[in-house]
Amino acid sequence: MEKTDRNDRMLCREKICGRDRIHQKEIIHGGDIYRNETELDFSVNVNPLGMPEESKKAAWEGILSSGAYPDTEGEKLRRKIAGQENLSMEQVVLGNGAAELIYAICYALNVKKGLVTAPSFAEYERALLAAGGKIQYFRLFEDQDFRLSEEILKEITDDCDILFLCNPNNPTGTFIKRELLEKTAERCEETKTYFCLDECFLPFMEEEGQYTMKGMLARFPHLVILRAFTKIYAMAGLRLGYALCSNVSLAEAIREKLQPWNTSIPAQMAGIAALEDEDYLKRTRKLIDEEKEYLLKELPKWGADRIYGHGANFIFFYGREDLGELLLKKKILIRDCSNFAGLSEGFYRIGIGCHEENEALIRCMRQIQEETQWQNPS
Amino acid sequence: MEKTDRNDRMLCREKICGRDRIHQKEIIHGGDIYRNETELDFSVNVNPLGMPEESKKAAWEGILSSGAYPDTEGEKLRRKIAGQENLSMEQVVLGNGAAELIYAICYALNVKKGLVTAPSFAEYERALLAAGGKIQYFRLFEDQDFRLSEEILKEITDDCDILFLCNPNNPTGTFIKRELLEKTAERCEETKTYFCLDECFLPFMEEEGQYTMKGMLARFPHLVILRAFTKIYAMAGLRLGYALCSNVSLAEAIREKLQPWNTSIPAQMAGIAALEDEDYLKRTRKLIDEEKEYLLKELPKWGADRIYGHGANFIFFYGREDLGELLLKKKILIRDCSNFAGLSEGFYRIGIGCHEENEALIRCMRQIQEETQWQNPS
Repeated sequence: MEKTDRNDRMLCREKICGRDRIHQKEIIHGGDIYRNETELDFSVNVNPLGMPEESKKAAWEGILSSGAYPDTEGEKLRRKIAGQENLSMEQVVLGNGAAELIYAICYALNVKKGLVTAPSFAEYERALLAAGGKIQYFRLFEDQDFRLSEEILKEITDDCDILFLCNPNNPTGTFIKRELLEKTAERCEETKTYFCLDECFLPFMEEEGQYTMKGMLARFPHLVILRAFTKIYAMAGLRLGYALCSNVSLAEAIREKLQPWNTSIPAQMAGIAALEDEDYLKRTRKLIDEEKEYLLKELPKWGADRIYGHGANFIFFYGREDLGELLLKKKILIRDCSNFAGLSEGFYRIGIGCHEENEALIRCMRQIQEETQWQNPS
Repeated sequence: MEKTDRNDRMLCREKICGRDRIHQKEIIHGGDIYRNETELDFSVNVNPLGMPEESKKAAWEGILSSGAYPDTEGEKLRRKIAGQENLSMEQVVLGNGAAELIYAICYALNVKKGLVTAPSFAEYERALLAAGGKIQYFRLFEDQDFRLSEEILKEITDDCDILFLCNPNNPTGTFIKRELLEKTAERCEETKTYFCLDECFLPFMEEEGQYTMKGMLARFPHLVILRAFTKIYAMAGLRLGYALCSNVSLAEAIREKLQPWNTSIPAQMAGIAALEDEDYLKRTRKLIDEEKEYLLKELPKWGADRIYGHGANFIFFYGREDLGELLLKKKILIRDCSNFAGLSEGFYRIGIGCHEENEALIRCMRQIQEETQWQNPS
């Protein structure tokens, strides 16, 4: 019953959101270390290794060069990305973080209706509203572990201008299989619906190659793939992302909605340096694998009642409704996911940290359980 | 006659531009040191002192903190700006450079028609087109030294959604007097036309206080003032600007068109540090005054046939049509202004550099004159 209750509440919350009438101000993100007294921040899902050393140095050189304007073509970085992805430079659009590109895509397509999953990254909703579009939600259900089902194909209709999917999904951490992604992309071509696939978290996975749709761009001209340096290279504060698409006219249309100097010199230079650090990805994946194993073993003991997806560098779970608040008293910030469309109180996302950080989290969760058990010895 | 000829050509060029049908790709900016072999860049108008030392240090600290997301509220910086300008934090919108805000303003107002002067900063045109708006040009005439006249008031009509003015104007360097600015703002209130006044270059002037409309924001709710750190604090590559308006709903509407993390941590931190360096502005103005005097004396001797405005940190002049090309052979880049709406071949803008740089420019211009006189001893 509890499960059903929660599903009801989710539905209720969607009604409150008013679906199409959700107000942008209601969308709040994690990472607000600026208005919370925090010692450890698990509310963001950024690489715990921190920015590669060579990227830091390059960013510093970038600061020293910042009397000049950034290259409006971002030529060096775009060439490097294009080379790695087997695309032409014209098929790569740089963004001041992937988030900027979500907006530019919605503006370029003059979106009237966009399809998003509930829950998913809230910026898809916010950007659709910013472009004057309406939001159609496709609900992901808890009793299906928030997995995307083939039912999505029926929702992709001629009047749908864009579909946003995130793989693995943020905040649920669930994967979408390649088979379903291909069917989705095919359906999008049939209905001339643009398909914006956010793969920002894929590089955390050893199995990236099994999931990415990068190799399919030429086959699907309506497909746009988002990638970010912010997460995998821990450049959240520096801002850098990119979009890939085979359709050069689309890439140009996106760029026309952006100022010419949208990516800073330090970000462009740090990005180039990051792509040259081959060892960093290996170290990242090893760390994430080990720490995920540790957290998946420990979290259920200390208050994470049900763990759902953990496909990337974060873990999504359901626990006591006051967990976020109690952890904040111990100066630990986790992502309260209750303000995602389709979720309710008690859902949390934690970004995987380095071992000392993860140990501190578990220690605090254990303390909370002990303290409250002592208060409520039921 | 030559003057008239050139005016004809300007008209002709506007026709070629197709006024409303100008293509975004035709708009090219200065500062392309990335595809020109350059030793000295006079094509941008950035403070020759370079970024304040404390800002560089702060930006470096910002890079070290960039595993975190930027403060979506930009609270510290906005409070600091608001405090200096006697406004509330809610009346300040931060941008990834002022250029980003030009777009966000056009998107927020859903502009159908915008009025710009020809010539002026090309991003007003590009942003109007990006928002789906049409451009109405108000020509500035060479024989009036490209000064804005009261005729502009007649062009501000009910169907005009926004007016862009730049003071001093880029690239012409001409000032708009406060009296005319006030009349313009009054006319904009009458017609409910938003008035975006770009004051990015004003801080280079000792007389800033005589020209700025900042003190008039409360009186004119349709007035938005743009300011940039990029130019006065030499942060062109780092990107930081802001908009000021008394109308809090307008400020919110602009922010809703932007991603929440649009200004990077290094930029926010460098901006805060810059505002604390009181001596920097004084040193800047002294340097610009001295070097402007030097250049205004030397330039006419070596090929700047007619000098127009020089209100800020740049000088606008007319000279031989091949000057830009000949200087580039000597690895000096100046701003060829022929692609500005309303200008033609032979118009140039140079940003004032430090003394050694300015001397090098004059030396090369002198060489060019000597070399070509020798070739064409007419």
